[in-house]
Amino acid sequence: MSRDTDVRHMRHALSLAARGLGRTWPNPAVGCVILHQGRIVGRGWTQPGGRPHAETMALAQAGDAARGATAYVTLEPCSHHGKTPPCAEALVASGVSRVVVALGDPDPRVNGRGIAMLQSAGIDVLTGVCEREAREQQQGFLSKVVNARPMLTLKLAMSWDGRIATATGESQWITGPEARRRVHAMRAGHDAVLVGGGTARIDDPTLTVRGLGVDYQPVRVVMSRRLDLPQTGNLARTAGEIPVWILHGPDAAPELISVWQGLGATLIEVPVTYGQLAPGAAMQALAEHGLTRVFCEGGGALSASLLSADVVDHVALFTAGLGLGAEGLPGLGVLGLDRLAQAKRFALARMEQVGPDALTLWQRIC
Amino acid sequence: MSRDTDVRHMRHALSLAARGLGRTWPNPAVGCVILHQGRIVGRGWTQPGGRPHAETMALAQAGDAARGATAYVTLEPCSHHGKTPPCAEALVASGVSRVVVALGDPDPRVNGRGIAMLQSAGIDVLTGVCEREAREQQQGFLSKVVNARPMLTLKLAMSWDGRIATATGESQWITGPEARRRVHAMRAGHDAVLVGGGTARIDDPTLTVRGLGVDYQPVRVVMSRRLDLPQTGNLARTAGEIPVWILHGPDAAPELISVWQGLGATLIEVPVTYGQLAPGAAMQALAEHGLTRVFCEGGGALSASLLSADVVDHVALFTAGLGLGAEGLPGLGVLGLDRLAQAKRFALARMEQVGPDALTLWQRIC
Repeated sequence: MSRDTDVRHMRHALSLAARGLGRTWPNPAVGCVILHQGRIVGRGWTQPGGRPHAETMALAQAGDAARGATAYVTLEPCSHHGKTPPCAEALVASGVSRVVVALGDPDPRVNGRGIAMLQSAGIDVLTGVCEREAREQQQGFLSKVVNARPMLTLKLAMSWDGRIATATGESQWITGPEARRRVHAMRAGHDAVLVGGGTARIDDPTLTVRGLGVDYQPVRVVMSRRLDLPQTGNLARTAGEIPVWILHGPDAAPELISVWQGLGATLIEVPVTYGQLAPGAAMQALAEHGLTRVFCEGGGALSASLLSADVVDHVALFTAGLGLGAEGLPGLGVLGLDRLAQAKRFALARMEQVGPDALTLWQRIC
Repeated sequence: MSRDTDVRHMRHALSLAARGLGRTWPNPAVGCVILHQGRIVGRGWTQPGGRPHAETMALAQAGDAARGATAYVTLEPCSHHGKTPPCAEALVASGVSRVVVALGDPDPRVNGRGIAMLQSAGIDVLTGVCEREAREQQQGFLSKVVNARPMLTLKLAMSWDGRIATATGESQWITGPEARRRVHAMRAGHDAVLVGGGTARIDDPTLTVRGLGVDYQPVRVVMSRRLDLPQTGNLARTAGEIPVWILHGPDAAPELISVWQGLGATLIEVPVTYGQLAPGAAMQALAEHGLTRVFCEGGGALSASLLSADVVDHVALFTAGLGLGAEGLPGLGVLGLDRLAQAKRFALARMEQVGPDALTLWQRIC
């Protein structure tokens, strides 16, 4: 089969995989296409919650047509018995004669064993097709497995001069409705939305995905050392229906822990450093609880603390066409930089006009 | 002649006119193309210092070939005897049979008289071809004539969070060499570069155009109420060769005025309001001194004062890929906004990657 054909079908599989982003955690969002004599006989992607896997879906659709076919999978098929039998085994049983894989799975339970299992069954295996795209798509899963923390996107929406509210605290609306809609779409592509306790108190956000026809919701995560959050606000009100996780310090009052548990929230204790919840430990806790892609929407103190801890992978900066002046509320808190050279620099990945606002996307420089 | 042909030649004339931007003040930068039987027989643009005019240059090149030709001019030909005889007269004398004009000249000494002069000589006149582009190009000249102030571009070069230096004052370099080069090109397209006294003291800038092979320099303008500027800095050192204009308050010490005059600077007195040089009056003074296009490079206090006074037409925002934190130096001073609705909003005109930095260009919404 030509390289071009392989790339074309792998791109198809990647586009199927993308449907799962934000909803397959703790599992990776994988895509699978099965091609028999030039005809697509099966397509699958990881289902919400992470199961069934992409290969299972595609093989079920292909049925007998899988025999002698080529399977394109965006991530190495699993080789271990988890809650489902291994996909590598299913591929062997289906009779496919060739498997094309974009990216190896660094999960220690897989890590080459999936490919080895296929090869020892006599299947022709090609790896590394569209590997760069697959790596980008799997960034959250890879970060969880390799770095023990989720991929983190930090959203900033500010005036030219980095302010998010006037001196009197007025902040609605600095960016336009198109930017807010885009933020909802960004939420939908992440497993969880994260805010600091101050934002939860002041803005009383719901942090749900609205207006996009999306039928699932990311986990809402709040970092609040002392659990001093409004018990009658939007998060409290909806915690029974849509997950709310609260990261708190060891010094949070037990009665507040009970109150929030009673409201339906998941409570996660995190150590405190320099008077605030340790950002690195917080991210590790989120990965341990299965999250692979987290979207942080502020406020300024939390954003600064995450940047300082060097756990931010992407920055989505919305810039509105106005200045608010030095008396306005800063969108980023104190970073404690002594020298310019200490500032962590990010690479500009993309720029886009979103309604009246500018969106620039920045990527961590590894 | 077809509309398409007219547009094509007018665009050519506009591109010739652009060569004069920043160096024809107090006159407008005009372009002229003379077309005889489908062949370009003359091209001209306003020469440095504003004379000879574009039409004079193009007619001289065309010579006898102008007879029966079409002349494309980006601005209505002048009708008044200034330091040169009127261009409308020269066009009539040349024997051109048709003149295409992009934009009328609102200068009260012209204002339709140039076109009337052509028409009464029996020349066929078409106006309004590429009028929008011409209006944009003439924005500085139009602003001087209509609003009695120059067009003002405000450059901001900041971190994501609107900072221009760390808490310790370190500011070199936040943006990259490509952005600095672009700033030099922007300087070259303006009549003058403007900074506040604080920037002149702290950064000791030269404010010249360097590294672009440009053989002229914009005027350097400093706003300093009390003339408390370093007398041995770069501006003082070069004031004898490249113009330095200083706007000062009525309370500037007469001996400092003498010192700066001795150094070769032009001193311009401007009234003081709220303890600072009145920004509107300052801009008016610059227009009275002939400037049509001014490029402000800060600092934060001056930038805020110009935005507050609503005399900023364009904002060129360079954003570097890093945060500097709330302890950093703000790129924009206090604006004194009570309500978000009071903030002057600008429209996003263009975005561009410049080396590692993002450049967004914003336009005043009229």
